[in-house]
This record gives sequence, structure tokens and C-alpha cells, in this order.
Amino acid sequence: MSTYIAPLRDMRFVMTELADLDALSSLPGLDEVTPELADAVLEEAAKLAAEVLAPLNKTGDGQGARLTQDGVVAADGFAQAYRQFSAGGWSGLSGDPAFGGQGLPELLHAATVEMWNSANMAFALCPLLTAGATEALRQHGSEDLKQRYLPQLISGAWTGTMNLTEPQAGSDLAAVRTKAVPDGNQYRLYGQKIFITWGDHDMTDNVIHLVLARTPDAPEGVRGISLFLVPKFLLNADDSPGQRNDVHCVSLEHKLGIHASPTCVMSFGDKDGAIGYLVGEKNKGLAHMFTMMNEARQKVGIQGLAMAERAYQQAREYANERVQGRLAASRSGQAVAIIHHPDVRRMLLTMKSQIEAMRAFAYVMAADMDRTHRHPDDSERARHQARVDLLIPVLKGWCTELGVEIASLGVQVHGGMGYIEETGACQFLRDARIATIYEGTTGIQAADLVGRKLASDGGAAMSALVAEMRSVALEAGQSTDARLAPIGTAVAASAQALEDATKWMLSALSTDIDGALASSVDYLMMTGYVCGGWQMARAALVASKKEAAGEDQEFHRTKLATVRFYADKILPKVQALQTAILRGASGAVDMSIEQF
Amino acid sequence: MSTYIAPLRDMRFVMTELADLDALSSLPGLDEVTPELADAVLEEAAKLAAEVLAPLNKTGDGQGARLTQDGVVAADGFAQAYRQFSAGGWSGLSGDPAFGGQGLPELLHAATVEMWNSANMAFALCPLLTAGATEALRQHGSEDLKQRYLPQLISGAWTGTMNLTEPQAGSDLAAVRTKAVPDGNQYRLYGQKIFITWGDHDMTDNVIHLVLARTPDAPEGVRGISLFLVPKFLLNADDSPGQRNDVHCVSLEHKLGIHASPTCVMSFGDKDGAIGYLVGEKNKGLAHMFTMMNEARQKVGIQGLAMAERAYQQAREYANERVQGRLAASRSGQAVAIIHHPDVRRMLLTMKSQIEAMRAFAYVMAADMDRTHRHPDDSERARHQARVDLLIPVLKGWCTELGVEIASLGVQVHGGMGYIEETGACQFLRDARIATIYEGTTGIQAADLVGRKLASDGGAAMSALVAEMRSVALEAGQSTDARLAPIGTAVAASAQALEDATKWMLSALSTDIDGALASSVDYLMMTGYVCGGWQMARAALVASKKEAAGEDQEFHRTKLATVRFYADKILPKVQALQTAILRGASGAVDMSIEQF
Repeated sequence: MSTYIAPLRDMRFVMTELADLDALSSLPGLDEVTPELADAVLEEAAKLAAEVLAPLNKTGDGQGARLTQDGVVAADGFAQAYRQFSAGGWSGLSGDPAFGGQGLPELLHAATVEMWNSANMAFALCPLLTAGATEALRQHGSEDLKQRYLPQLISGAWTGTMNLTEPQAGSDLAAVRTKAVPDGNQYRLYGQKIFITWGDHDMTDNVIHLVLARTPDAPEGVRGISLFLVPKFLLNADDSPGQRNDVHCVSLEHKLGIHASPTCVMSFGDKDGAIGYLVGEKNKGLAHMFTMMNEARQKVGIQGLAMAERAYQQAREYANERVQGRLAASRSGQAVAIIHHPDVRRMLLTMKSQIEAMRAFAYVMAADMDRTHRHPDDSERARHQARVDLLIPVLKGWCTELGVEIASLGVQVHGGMGYIEETGACQFLRDARIATIYEGTTGIQAADLVGRKLASDGGAAMSALVAEMRSVALEAGQSTDARLAPIGTAVAASAQALEDATKWMLSALSTDIDGALASSVDYLMMTGYVCGGWQMARAALVASKKEAAGEDQEFHRTKLATVRFYADKILPKVQALQTAILRGASGAVDMSIEQF
Repeated sequence: MSTYIAPLRDMRFVMTELADLDALSSLPGLDEVTPELADAVLEEAAKLAAEVLAPLNKTGDGQGARLTQDGVVAADGFAQAYRQFSAGGWSGLSGDPAFGGQGLPELLHAATVEMWNSANMAFALCPLLTAGATEALRQHGSEDLKQRYLPQLISGAWTGTMNLTEPQAGSDLAAVRTKAVPDGNQYRLYGQKIFITWGDHDMTDNVIHLVLARTPDAPEGVRGISLFLVPKFLLNADDSPGQRNDVHCVSLEHKLGIHASPTCVMSFGDKDGAIGYLVGEKNKGLAHMFTMMNEARQKVGIQGLAMAERAYQQAREYANERVQGRLAASRSGQAVAIIHHPDVRRMLLTMKSQIEAMRAFAYVMAADMDRTHRHPDDSERARHQARVDLLIPVLKGWCTELGVEIASLGVQVHGGMGYIEETGACQFLRDARIATIYEGTTGIQAADLVGRKLASDGGAAMSALVAEMRSVALEAGQSTDARLAPIGTAVAASAQALEDATKWMLSALSTDIDGALASSVDYLMMTGYVCGGWQMARAALVASKKEAAGEDQEFHRTKLATVRFYADKILPKVQALQTAILRGASGAVDMSIEQF
């Protein structure tokens, strides 16, 4: 039976040494955030993840959510676990204190999101979507809507959903057809939405849908989409759930993974229309939705990290237990646990080094988000916002692609046992596989990165990033610790490659947009690997100093070895990606359809 | 509903132009093999694959094989399909004519194996294992055993299995414990085998197990293992199946994929012992098994190609049908089929170019196997044997790793629909995932490549290979067709990288075996990519000439574009692998277990 133990030591290292948790406490509203508080929160979260959520992961996978005449029923134990989750205040961890949230930083939130997803990704999707709906409502909802709905979403008494996709409108939301017909101060919605995560369930007594739809007079395309709040149960005068609204889950998808997370086909207005309330401005729905999508993309990126961590823990455990074969260097010797075999070590370190790189990248970005939200200085806020805008698609795309690769390596470490469902390793692969798809595929993230983010500032945010990377590489190169030199060299070369590829990309964007897009996923992945290298080099600098100072030497020595592995074995991919990027579409856009 | 259409045009191109089918007909026993015969065989096979096997792929996945009181029952339709398969003579396609086989070349066999596996990998495993058992019996069995069992295995009247693995003996067969106790001219076997593919079923009236076991006086380790033939039903005097033998499937594994292929736990000797007959020499069982394992590894490599092809066909079809989004270059325009989007083209060509590289590599090797078996000249046979021995682990490892990657890309092309089981794309990923594991994991193949194959001849076979690659690169570089120059350059650089990495590896093998093994999978993958590039460059040379001569210009122009994409976008990985290889274990072998 696979267990999960939150990697608290590395989480703390990243939060304290790389994401500068201490400095966050000087931001308005975060003055109570001390390292002690952070530790206490992490430890409580780790306990809930290990003791309550992780044990339901496999049973939930086997049983799945199911659709009954009374709606969707969550897998056994999920409702009870969800009540514990809400009671612990986890739903509102970073929520607005004005509506009952704890107002803790996104940095701390990111670490808990990693834990929930490592423990039980299907479960964790429910609060993930709720947080997105909450944020959209907080930013764009009327005061009345906020007063009536936010406290319950933040407390976790109710959950939230994001209703975007329709059969003909996946990545292209311009094609949304769901209708919203005015009816006094409210609207009646008619239409069908698909792929609605946790669109219905029996864990709470209301579900609040945020829905994209068109009013009758709306213009065509993306400029005619509005955002509506549609509760499963309409509220009584005292704000308690009352009459059932005309929105129903009509079927569940049969998916590769995340079986315990119901993926609903939602039908709006089969009878009199589903009553909904406009959120924000009419015809600005897409922009409003994007504010919640950015946060959702960040969290889905963390899902990639989380699945990789879980797969790693299970693979490491198996490699320690499974005795098979002898070491080549000592043919006559005893059979050994497979963790002694060089190729198994290669696999485990390929997992571990990239997990630590992803974690550093993700948490540092979460701290940037806190600065974006809270920094008193306008120019500092803007600087951090530019960084976050640039890197959100990289976090989402790169971490989820690695999540799949690493979960697959986890299967491989198990050999034949990895292919057997009872072992549990394949569930992580099956679950992780969705993350490169939902909240915008990797291709969509890459188009966002080059077509919107790079293009919008002519590469300024990327230049600033590369400059920071260079100074870290320089510092590593000049260190008296000889172990840092090769790391500095590798990161400097990677930063140069990223700069060269960026120049090419900016030029291609103006002369050959199709060529730019054909190389965009390679560019996104390259940016991810280089960002990982940058953060790992920062980690190595810290580790070297701490080790020299005699602090927790085993941990810091291991960190240095792990960074070295990343520099030696992972960063070379950057070279290959650079070459591939500069070759552009390589004729791909000129081929006729018949030639495929 | 996903269909499968055998890629006959490319198969013919590879067989004729790259694997030199014409020349094979000059080999002893192959004088009747004309291009016309080959065409007729391929067309018949394509029909059976498309019309009989492919339609059962999805239903078989959903239903799976099941264990009943009377043994394993295959999924609906499989028994009927198997009878058609046998009746068509497909079981004995390359089988020995002395026992009823058709004696056709491995080259043709390889193409049919690709088709069966693309159409229905779970089904195709049954003849795949049967062929392995047949070959072991043909090479090592006594005349009496061959007379009694071979004709029925070759005709497909009975099927065969390979019983190697035990719970404590996976990759390490030295740990095999199954006992074989002499009883007159026969043996009685006692023990349990796991992961036995098609270990029992109701499609034929006998199943012939080839089983590794130890006699009571056997030495420890690999030198004490013998090979036995254990039929499910003992034969009557007239060689018809008679008394039930004491070997039974006691449970089936619940697996990630290939659900319709029963993976059995086989129990030998629960009552009086399972009666078995020694095959070949006592204590030489492992060597005998290896002869069939080489062929099985070749076919599993082809499974990787086959799953990739099937995933590609389905992704291409979806990309042609699914209308979503507009082209960046024409914002105001109509929504288009997603095959027009540059990133979708990148994904499809990443699939297609590597599939064609794998096919060329696999078929050329199959023709080498024919020369190995049949060439009248000893030195030619030896030369081809050295090539085959060197590259079998590369074919197995590289093609199966790409099979998983490409099947995963196939899911990605579908976006959200790819994650839904009904679509069928995830089945190819689930099915493909086993192929990097069974018949020796990629790590085992890599250890075989560097530890056995490279080490055994000091890199001589690899040098000969690199020299051939260089001359192809040179020819491309000197062509008057300007499109060939960049291909030649890329292949020349790749060949150089392979040579450099080989030198490093040979040196590491003698000084730092753990470092060599830690880089062995990277080295295997690099060899695969370079071999693919070499064959693709050969394909480009032919295509250029044929196009200039006015022959089937559309096909040859497409081939040139596909090769260019491979050179531009895939071969850069070789650089990265070279860098990673030369960095050795990067400290991985020095880390303590606690540091993971």
C-alpha cells in the first residue's frame, strides 16, 4: 500500500531560502506570517494529506464517482474527508479575511496544494476549482453576490465550478453557444457544458457554478461572452439553500484517470431555464474568467509537481524493498535492492532532481504572486506581475509535461509490477496525464507564452529574467566551492541559449508566425528547464554556504549533488531544444493535408 | 470509431528500397519471394488486420480476458478471429517448411507483425509468444518433440508460451526456483510462474508452455536452469490432446492495458507434478531461452512502432475532423480543422517522422536477420549476426520508448477528448506502456547493449555501423539535390556523436562500470535516434532520385519533407544525449540510500 509523506524538509528549504518567506511578512496583511506559523500550517496540512486524503486515493480510483437519480455521489469516504478539510479551514487558506478567509500567502497555499494533490489529485480538484470560482467572484462580483456566496465558498461549506467548455468550444471559447436570457434582475440559462470538474456531488449542500454564456443581444465571438453565477440550489431570503435550480449533471465521463473526480456533462435549462446572476460586466466574461484561469493554471502546474513527487515516493520505496540482481562491479556478491543499480539510480535522480527544480520554480512564482497582489510599491507590483504573467504558462506546461514523464518513470522503476494496477504506480501516470490537457493544453500555454506574453512587451520580462539567471550563474562560477563551477557554467550556457532562442522567437513572431508557433512548445519546455536550472543553482549557492556553516550538512550535501545531476543530465536538453527551435517549422506548415 | 489501415505504401517503400527485398530472393530458400508475392501477402494481411482484428481491439479492452472454473476465456470474438488467423497461415509465415511453415522471410514477417499489433496488440501477443516458443523448440528440441509439437504450433492449431518470471525472479533469472524432478524419460514440475502472457485461453485445444526450471542436482544460479516443454494437455499416442496436465492458471493480473491479453499466474504441480520434457541440454536452459528471447525482443520493438502508427492514424483522423480555432495568420477567418494549426502539425510530424524512422530501422534489421539465417557465405552471416546482436536491444528499447511517447502525443492531439476512454486514444497509451517493460526493461536492454554487445567485440560492430552511416551522410552531402545537404550534415554530426559516445562508453566499461551503466539508457536512446537518422537519410536519397525520375512524386516529396523534419527536430536530441552520456553517473552511484 502506497503512502504519502509530505517532503517538508525540501518545502521549507524552498520557502525560506529561495522564495524568501521572511520578506513576505513585511508585505501588508502578512505581518503575522512567521516561520513558526508557516511550519505549523505545513505540519497540519501534511497530517491531513497523509492520514485522511492519501488513504482514499486508491479506493477512489477503483470506485470512482457515480451518477444516481439524485445526482452525483462521491466515492466512499470523500464526503467525510471533505468535511474535515473544510473544518480545518483549508478551503480559505489564502482567502480574503473580509469574507472569512485566513489571508495567508500564496506561497503557503502552493505548498498545501502540492500536498493535497500528491495525496489525492481527484479530491484536490474540488478545492482547486472552488478557489478559482471564489477568486473570480471576489474580483468581479457585485457586493450583493459576494456577501451571499463568498463566505460559504471560502469556508468550504459550498464548492465552486468553472463552466467553460462546450462540445464545439474547447480551446476556442469564441464558439460558446450557451444562452442567458434576461428575466428581471436575473437571467435564465440554456445550454450544455462538458468536462465540468466536480460539476455535481453530495459532499456539500450547494454547488456554485460560474458559467460562460451569451445574452441574446451579444456580439459574435469572444466579445459577446458574459460570466454568470448559477447555484445548484437557489438561496432563500436567509441565504440558506432553497429551491433546486434547473441545472443538472446528465452524465459522467469515463476517463483514463482521476476517476474519483466527477467530470460532468452539465445541462442548463432543460425546463424553465437555470437561474443565474451576471458576474462583472456584460460581454466581459472571458476577461473575468481569465483572472481565475491564471490561478487555476498555476495550481495545475503544481499538480504536475505533486504527481511527480508521489510517483517518486512510491518508486523510491519499491526500489528500496525489491531485491533483484547483483551489482556489475561485484558479480559474485549477494542480490541487492534495486536502488543500488546505476540505472535505477539514474531514473530516481531524474525524478528527484526535476521535482526539486519544479518545486523551487513553482514556490518562487507563488511568492511573486504574493508580491503582485500585495506589494505597496506600484512599480514592484508591476515588475512581479510581468514575471508572473510571463511564467504562468511555463509553470503550467513544463510542470505538467514533466509530471507525465516522471510518473511514467515511476512505473518503469517497478518493472513488471508497475504495470499491475494493484501496485498503484500506474494510477499516478493515469491521473497525471490529464494535467497537460485541461486548463489549456501545452500547445495553448505555448501560444500564450510566445503569442501574448513575449509579444506584448517585446521580450522585456524575459530579458529581465535572463539577466537574473546570468547573475546567479556568475555567482556560482565565482564561488570558492569548486562544486558550484560546473553548475554555474551549465546555467550560464542555458541562459545564453534561452536568450538566443528568445531573439529568434521575437523575430519569427513578426515575420513567420506559423514558424514561431510550430516551435512554441519547444520554447516553453526550454524556458522551463532553464528556469529550473536557475532555481537549482540558487539552491546550490545556499546549500554550499549552509553546509560550510555546519548546518544540516546531510541535507545540504544532498541538495548539491541533486543540483549537479540536474546540471549534468537534465540541462543538456536545452541545447537540443535550442537547435530544434531555431529550425522553425521545418516545412511542417507547408505540407498539404494529404501529406500527413 | 477508430479504424486501422495498414500503411502499405510506406511498408513497400521500406521493404523494397531500404531493406532490399529483391536481393533477399537470391538467398537459399527464398527464391520464390518476388515483389508480387510480397505485395499479395501484405494486402491479405492488411485486410485481416483491418477487418477482423482491429474491430475487436476496443471491445477486447473493455471486456478483457476472464478466469472461469474451466480456465481462461478470451474476450468475445477473439477465438473466432484466432481461427481465421490460423486458417490464413499467418502463424507459420516465417516457419520452417519442414514442419508446415511457409518459410517466408523475416522481413515480410516483420511487416505483418506490425499490422497485427497496430490492429490489436492484445491479440497479437498470442502469436508473438507462440513464435518464440516455436523457435526455441525448433532450435533445441529433440526430433521426437519437434515431430509431435512443431506442426501444430506452426499451423496455429496450438499456441505457445514463455514461462520465465517468478515472484522473486524478474530480470534476474538466476533466482528461478521452479523444480523439475526426473520421472523416467520425463520430468514433474512444481512451482509458480507469474506474468505469463496468454498462459491459458479457450481459443485452441492445447497450449504448449516452455518453462525454465531447476533439476534437483542443478548448480545454483544461471548455470543450473533447464528448459522444459509442458503441454496443457498431454498428447495421446496419435498426438491428439488427451489427459489434462497438472498446470493451471490460478489468477489473472489487473493491468493498465492489453486487457484482452490474459496475464496469468501459472501454477505447476499442485497435485502430482506437471509433466514436462527437457528441451535441449540440461542446465543450458537460459541460453536456449535467449535464442527465442532475441526474436521476441525484435517483435516487441515492432510493437512500439505498431502502437505509434495506430496512435498516429487516430490522431490524424481527429485532427482532420475537429474544427476549432482560427489560424494566427488570418484572425478574421473561419474556424479550421485543427490539423491546420502549427503546433498540431508539429505533434503529428513528430509522430510520423519517428514512426517512419522506426519502420525503416526495424525492417532493415529484419532483412539482416534473414541474411543471418540464410546467407551462404559464413563471413556474411557473421557480419549480419554481429549487426543484429548489437542492434536488437536498441530496436527493443528505442522503439518501445518512442511507442509510449508517440501514443501520449496521440492523446494530446485530441485535447480533452483524448482523456475520455470512449475516444480510444488512451488505450494505445495504456497498451504501449507495457512494451518498455516486458521482455527486459529498457534498462536491461541498455545493459545488454553496453555490457554485453559493445564489450564483447570492443566496439567493432558499432564502428562498422558508424562507417556505413558516414558514407550515407557523405552521399547526401554531395547530392545535387540541395534538400539533401542539411540531412547529410545532421546525420554526419550524429554519427560523430555516436562514435564519441561509444569511445567514452568503451573506456568507462573498463574503468567505471557503474558510470557506464548509469549512462547506458541514454546511450541506447542515442543509438536509436542515430540509426533512425541513418535510415531516413537513405530514404531521402532514394526519394530524391525517384522524384527526379518522375515516379510517384507526391509520395517521394512527402518522404523528403518527413526526413527533413526528423533531421531538424528529432536529431538534435542526439547532442543532448551525448553531453549527458559523457557526464557519466554524475555522482548518482556515490549517493547513499538515505540521500534519495
